[in-house]
Amino acid sequence: MSDRIKGVLSPVVTPFREDSTVDLPRFTEQCKWLQANQIGLAFLGTNSEANSISPDERIAMIDAVIDAGLDPKGMMPGTGSCNLPTTVRLTRHAVEHGCAGVLMLPPFYYKGVSDEGLYRYFSEVIQRVGNDGLRVYLYHIPPVAQVGISLPLIERLLKSYPSVVAGVKDSSGDWNNTQAMLTHFAPDGFDVFAGSETFLLQTLRGGGAGCISATANVNAPAIHALYNSWQGPDADSQQRDLDKIRQIFQSYPMIPALKAAIAHWSDNPSWTRVRPPLVQLEPQQHRNLIEQLQAAGFSISGLAT
Amino acid sequence: MSDRIKGVLSPVVTPFREDSTVDLPRFTEQCKWLQANQIGLAFLGTNSEANSISPDERIAMIDAVIDAGLDPKGMMPGTGSCNLPTTVRLTRHAVEHGCAGVLMLPPFYYKGVSDEGLYRYFSEVIQRVGNDGLRVYLYHIPPVAQVGISLPLIERLLKSYPSVVAGVKDSSGDWNNTQAMLTHFAPDGFDVFAGSETFLLQTLRGGGAGCISATANVNAPAIHALYNSWQGPDADSQQRDLDKIRQIFQSYPMIPALKAAIAHWSDNPSWTRVRPPLVQLEPQQHRNLIEQLQAAGFSISGLAT
Repeated sequence: MSDRIKGVLSPVVTPFREDSTVDLPRFTEQCKWLQANQIGLAFLGTNSEANSISPDERIAMIDAVIDAGLDPKGMMPGTGSCNLPTTVRLTRHAVEHGCAGVLMLPPFYYKGVSDEGLYRYFSEVIQRVGNDGLRVYLYHIPPVAQVGISLPLIERLLKSYPSVVAGVKDSSGDWNNTQAMLTHFAPDGFDVFAGSETFLLQTLRGGGAGCISATANVNAPAIHALYNSWQGPDADSQQRDLDKIRQIFQSYPMIPALKAAIAHWSDNPSWTRVRPPLVQLEPQQHRNLIEQLQAAGFSISGLAT
Repeated sequence: MSDRIKGVLSPVVTPFREDSTVDLPRFTEQCKWLQANQIGLAFLGTNSEANSISPDERIAMIDAVIDAGLDPKGMMPGTGSCNLPTTVRLTRHAVEHGCAGVLMLPPFYYKGVSDEGLYRYFSEVIQRVGNDGLRVYLYHIPPVAQVGISLPLIERLLKSYPSVVAGVKDSSGDWNNTQAMLTHFAPDGFDVFAGSETFLLQTLRGGGAGCISATANVNAPAIHALYNSWQGPDADSQQRDLDKIRQIFQSYPMIPALKAAIAHWSDNPSWTRVRPPLVQLEPQQHRNLIEQLQAAGFSISGLAT
C-alpha cells in the first residue's frame, strides 16, 4: 500500500470568471502551485464549491488538470453527489484518468437514511465503476452533509471491498471520532485523513495518513513542513503555529476568506468570486482578514498572478 | 392570475427498472392516472427521489410526459439542485416545454448560508433562464434540505420578480409558518401550497392555493374531493378522513410506503424499487401497511398494471 496517496492535501479553491464559469487556466495554475509545494490535489471538495458546480463542469475540471500535465498520482478529486449515476460517471472519469483516489460524499439530500441504504449506495457505485484501480476515500462531514459515515458502515464496506475502500476524511471536527477510526481501521492499512491540520499531528501520531485541509490552499508550505518533520523535536511548536493561522481563517466564512487571501497575495481580485449561495467577504472583512494575517507574519509567495 | 396552477398536486413517485434506470413508460402511465384524478404533476419532487436522479435522467422524464401528450399546464416539475448551472438547465427545459411552473429547492449542500446568498442564487437562475413564461414556486422543506426559504427572502424576490415568483410549497410542517406566508403574501396573488393534505383545509380557508402532497400519489380522489368541496358542510369530516390515511403512511418511511401501496393495488411488485440510499420496506412492514390500509377501508383503483 506504499503507493497510496498520503500527506497533506488541499480541497483546491475554484476560480470563477466574471460570467461565473470556471476559470480552468487559473485553476490549473493554482494546482501547479500546490503540487510544487508538495500538496496533494483534493480538488472538487467542499471548499472547492464542488457542489455548486455542475457534473459537466466537474468533468471539465478533471480533464483540465490532466491535460495540463499534472501528476494524477497526486490527485483525489471529489466525485460524490446526491445521485448514483452522477457519482458513477465522475468516479469512472477520475479513475480512468489515473487519479490516485476519489473523495466520496454520501448521498446527502435525504436525511436520516440507514447504514443499509448507504452501504447499498457505495456498493453499487463501486460495482458499476468496476475498475480495480479505484481507491475510494469516504468523506465524513456531518456538519455540512448531515449524513455521516459510521464505523459499522466502514467496517462493512471494508469487508466487501478491501482493496477499493482505501480510507476516510474525517471532517466531523470530533477528535474522538478520528481516534476511533484510527484505532479500528488504521492498523489494517486504512488511511485516515484529518479534515483539517488542527488534528494533523495527533492524526500522524495515531497512525493516520495526513490531512485534507481548507487552509492547505494558503498555508501550504508550513503545513507540509509539519507533515515532513512530525517526529522531530519542534513538531508541537509547529502545530501551534499552524493553529494560529487556522484560527484567523476560521473566524471568517472559510471559502470566501481563502479566496480573499489568494486574491491579495496573487494581486488578482478576480479570485474573490464565489458562486451563490456563498457570498464574498465584505470589503471591511477582507481588509481585516489581511491585516490579521499580516500581523501574524503570514504571507503567500509564488502564486500565479 | 387565474390561469395559474392550483389545487392538489402530487410529487409523482418514480418507478425504476430492475437495472435501476427510470421506467419511463410506467412513469407516464402513473402521471396519466393522476391527471385523470385531477391531480397536478409535481414530479421530480422529494418524494419522487428527484435528488437521487441525475440531471440527464430528469430531462428525459420531462420529455417523456410531454411526449406522452400529458398537459404541461398541469405540471410543476422540481428543477432545484445544489448547483446553479444544473438548476438553470432543468428550469429552462421545463418552461420551454410549457410547464405551468417549477418547484425550486434552494441550493442545499452548504449550510448556514445567508438570505443574501440565496437571493443571488434564485435571482441568477431567473435571469439566466430569461423566459417571461417562467413561474417559480419556492420549495421550503427545512427538515430535509436544512436550508430554508425565509419570509424576508420571499419578500425580496417578489419585489424583484413579481410575475415570475409565483408561490411557495411549505413543507416545514409548521402551521404557524404557513399561516405567516398566507398572511403576508397570499393577498397579493402569491400562491401558498401546503406541503401535505394535513393542512389542506386550513390552507384553503387562509386563502391558499392547495397542497402538494406525497399521499396524493395514493389517496388522490379523496384529497381532490376535499379541494373541490372545502366550503361545504362536511369539509372538516373529510379532512379527518384524509388525516387517518395520512397517519398510516406517515408511520412508515414515506417513499417506500407509497411505492408499496402502489405495488399492491397495481399488482406489480416492481413498484417497490427505490434507489439507494433509500431502502424498500421489509416484507413484514409491507404486509402490515397493507393490512392497516385495508382495515381503514382504503384502496386504490384504476392504476395501470
